[in-house]
Amino acid sequence: MPFDINCDMGESFGAYSIGDDFEILNYVTSINIACGFHAGDPMIMRKTVKKAVEKNVKIGAHPGYPDLQGFGRRNMEFSPEEIYNMIVYQVGALKAFVDIEGGELHHIKPHGALYNQSANDPVKAEAIINAVHDINPNLILYYLSGSLIAKMARDRGLTVYEEAFSDRNYNEDGTLVSRSQDNALIQEEAQMLEHVNRILSSNEVQSVQGTLIKLNAQTLCIHGDGPHALDFAKKISEMNK
Amino acid sequence: MPFDINCDMGESFGAYSIGDDFEILNYVTSINIACGFHAGDPMIMRKTVKKAVEKNVKIGAHPGYPDLQGFGRRNMEFSPEEIYNMIVYQVGALKAFVDIEGGELHHIKPHGALYNQSANDPVKAEAIINAVHDINPNLILYYLSGSLIAKMARDRGLTVYEEAFSDRNYNEDGTLVSRSQDNALIQEEAQMLEHVNRILSSNEVQSVQGTLIKLNAQTLCIHGDGPHALDFAKKISEMNK
Amino acid sequence: MPFDINCDMGESFGAYSIGDDFEILNYVTSINIACGFHAGDPMIMRKTVKKAVEKNVKIGAHPGYPDLQGFGRRNMEFSPEEIYNMIVYQVGALKAFVDIEGGELHHIKPHGALYNQSANDPVKAEAIINAVHDINPNLILYYLSGSLIAKMARDRGLTVYEEAFSDRNYNEDGTLVSRSQDNALIQEEAQMLEHVNRILSSNEVQSVQGTLIKLNAQTLCIHGDGPHALDFAKKISEMNK
Amino acid sequence: MPFDINCDMGESFGAYSIGDDFEILNYVTSINIACGFHAGDPMIMRKTVKKAVEKNVKIGAHPGYPDLQGFGRRNMEFSPEEIYNMIVYQVGALKAFVDIEGGELHHIKPHGALYNQSANDPVKAEAIINAVHDINPNLILYYLSGSLIAKMARDRGLTVYEEAFSDRNYNEDGTLVSRSQDNALIQEEAQMLEHVNRILSSNEVQSVQGTLIKLNAQTLCIHGDGPHALDFAKKISEMNK
Repeated sequence: MPFDINCDMGESFGAYSIGDDFEILNYVTSINIACGFHAGDPMIMRKTVKKAVEKNVKIGAHPGYPDLQGFGRRNMEFSPEEIYNMIVYQVGALKAFVDIEGGELHHIKPHGALYNQSANDPVKAEAIINAVHDINPNLILYYLSGSLIAKMARDRGLTVYEEAFSDRNYNEDGTLVSRSQDNALIQEEAQMLEHVNRILSSNEVQSVQGTLIKLNAQTLCIHGDGPHALDFAKKISEMNK
Repeated sequence: MPFDINCDMGESFGAYSIGDDFEILNYVTSINIACGFHAGDPMIMRKTVKKAVEKNVKIGAHPGYPDLQGFGRRNMEFSPEEIYNMIVYQVGALKAFVDIEGGELHHIKPHGALYNQSANDPVKAEAIINAVHDINPNLILYYLSGSLIAKMARDRGLTVYEEAFSDRNYNEDGTLVSRSQDNALIQEEAQMLEHVNRILSSNEVQSVQGTLIKLNAQTLCIHGDGPHALDFAKKISEMNK
Repeated sequence: MPFDINCDMGESFGAYSIGDDFEILNYVTSINIACGFHAGDPMIMRKTVKKAVEKNVKIGAHPGYPDLQGFGRRNMEFSPEEIYNMIVYQVGALKAFVDIEGGELHHIKPHGALYNQSANDPVKAEAIINAVHDINPNLILYYLSGSLIAKMARDRGLTVYEEAFSDRNYNEDGTLVSRSQDNALIQEEAQMLEHVNRILSSNEVQSVQGTLIKLNAQTLCIHGDGPHALDFAKKISEMNK
Repeated sequence: MPFDINCDMGESFGAYSIGDDFEILNYVTSINIACGFHAGDPMIMRKTVKKAVEKNVKIGAHPGYPDLQGFGRRNMEFSPEEIYNMIVYQVGALKAFVDIEGGELHHIKPHGALYNQSANDPVKAEAIINAVHDINPNLILYYLSGSLIAKMARDRGLTVYEEAFSDRNYNEDGTLVSRSQDNALIQEEAQMLEHVNRILSSNEVQSVQGTLIKLNAQTLCIHGDGPHALDFAKKISEMNK
């Protein structure tokens, strides 16, 4: 069975554009749309939802921390109740556009620091799971392959797509190499393609220590920005057939 | 038939509180909940929705301009598409909380400058009507009694509750005396009660010029803040039986 | 005497970049740095000031409305006191970076809707003039050539650089063709160069009606973004020698 | 020598008011004015500076994290460069109002999570010290008595006022009991007065474990909000003579 290929979209804001190439919709099977807290605004959300519906690409909500200046990537401390409510708010806002454009909300994938800080923190993880569950228990949760939250969500009865990353290096224990490290990102295209091929063909990644790690991933995250994003997306799409 | 008595609520933000006396829920039949743009945040929206559901008070969305510093009261220029999308976004966010708390969204009442700038502007009015219609044509639109938008919305097939204000003076042509005028607000309690009584009993107001104006109002807006708000709400609630 | 050539800079925000090509500093004599309300943030302000000091380019503050989503281009209603205080705040913030980097604040040029709404409105104009005067009466005010505010500021004792625009069409009365019109911008490079040449050589522009209009400009505004900005800046810089 | 008595002020925002009782200016010797990131706006900053100059109360800048929704109390991760620049920006903005009102900036006291996260973190502490030093090495830094940053700042040549809190409980090691604990705040007035008296008379506090802790405090922080704030301020002011 081919992987789901997902990509973050709708991250522009007002006059500011980030990676808004709708061409990439031709090469992915699902997208995660920013909901106005870390990125995105009502105009861009609407336009992105409309394009996704036209292209028949699955639509996910991509809620993040209320930190536009930090693009939702700064660690912040929120109570479980705050996390729950910020997800309900953002998903509700996006869903309204999806309904209007005649689409259907398929999944929820938290963004940036919200994603990272909750992956293996049982209290934050539970807040997220409760929010997804209470919004609609049929929504799929996208989360880091091997994370605690993936297991907890499945135990709770949610469908989870475990996620692998096309351009991130992995530690031996299956966690991502932190963005604060120099080797967080895979920079070389050849290396990326090899990395992606290993994921798509055998659900494995090679850690920076050299060991092979077995994943249980159903979705692969690629990026829509950067000079070679489109070309790279095409190649991955071919590989995935 | 008694009037609907509505009141704006959920206008606090983070550590900042405005008129958050839930006691007033005992004396109104519907509330308009701020949606995070001019006021409100996810925590306060959730709490306010929960209280309203408990008290069986009808819930409306109260979308406004994205201007927290100005409390949504400053005139701003937006395109019709921006107005449409900002309403969809905010109503969607609120509706998510209403769904989770087992309530039902009853109406939409735009706030402040969005309300005022659109009341008699056919282009902005149409943007609002389209948004309400596309979200759910069964939602009721609350708007200034006698306004162009009230007529346009009814022509479009929406149910409209025309609105009278408990503490605002009226011009001879049925418009509200602008807040930039000294006599915008009715300050004296006795005068307010007389004003409200005239609305509730005969659907009329007396203009500042002294003439009687016939309204076609179904809802009366009262305020939840101010030292005498609660006492005043009780009296109006009694009057309305 | 050659014209001052000015350019808006420092308009990026967090992860969002706009026209951040510092190369353009080689071809202008002054820049206007966004101050965090309509664009810019502390990191970008610091970096831009530092570069300008290194290149010996004159530094101006570019305060705008508190409307990041609208990039300060939406008309908004503020009281004169609000305008005065928003300018003091933003200029003070920028000046702190200029002081730290060992530079000197040279001028103030309001941005976008603040600039446009105040150019010929005596009340708003006075608020701006008062702010500049009270901050430092030696600061130069950059404003639209022929505007009321330019005259008022000079009457008040401020030095004014009247401004011409390299890529904007003019009406017969010397005002800019509104951005809401299709022909607001001069799109053709050849036409722009002719337009700029006329300004630099004879302080005139040709209106869209075809008439020649005499300006009293001392500074020319060019843009740092767009695919040909750098090339265009070089040509204008050559022309201006 | 009497203590400096300081109080946070100017924390309102737009239509939202917090503790804006200017009466308290009669009973303190210095204030810390919010600078628009965690609280405050240009209108309120101006008004607060003006009142302080009139009352001859010393003015400090009170910079915080850019988190209005969290009132600057949420922990957030910033780089040292971000901390440096957010302080320069905010202090510059406030200083502009102080200059205009003919006052003088006396000190800088970081707010909330910025204050707490930097008190004993050498990297964040250095960023703050560098910012204060580069803005003006004669500015006094207010910081928690016994904190690492107080020592580091003094080593760097800055004047430091070590701070004690009128309503906070202390741990045995001289740190404040965290706000996440039930006993963070001293609630009883009698107990507060005893606590304050011990600080003012012998520069000591009693920890929640019962031990006496010697402080090296020069300033005492009191609060301007709460129903008894004014009465309490009067009593402390009397005690301090």
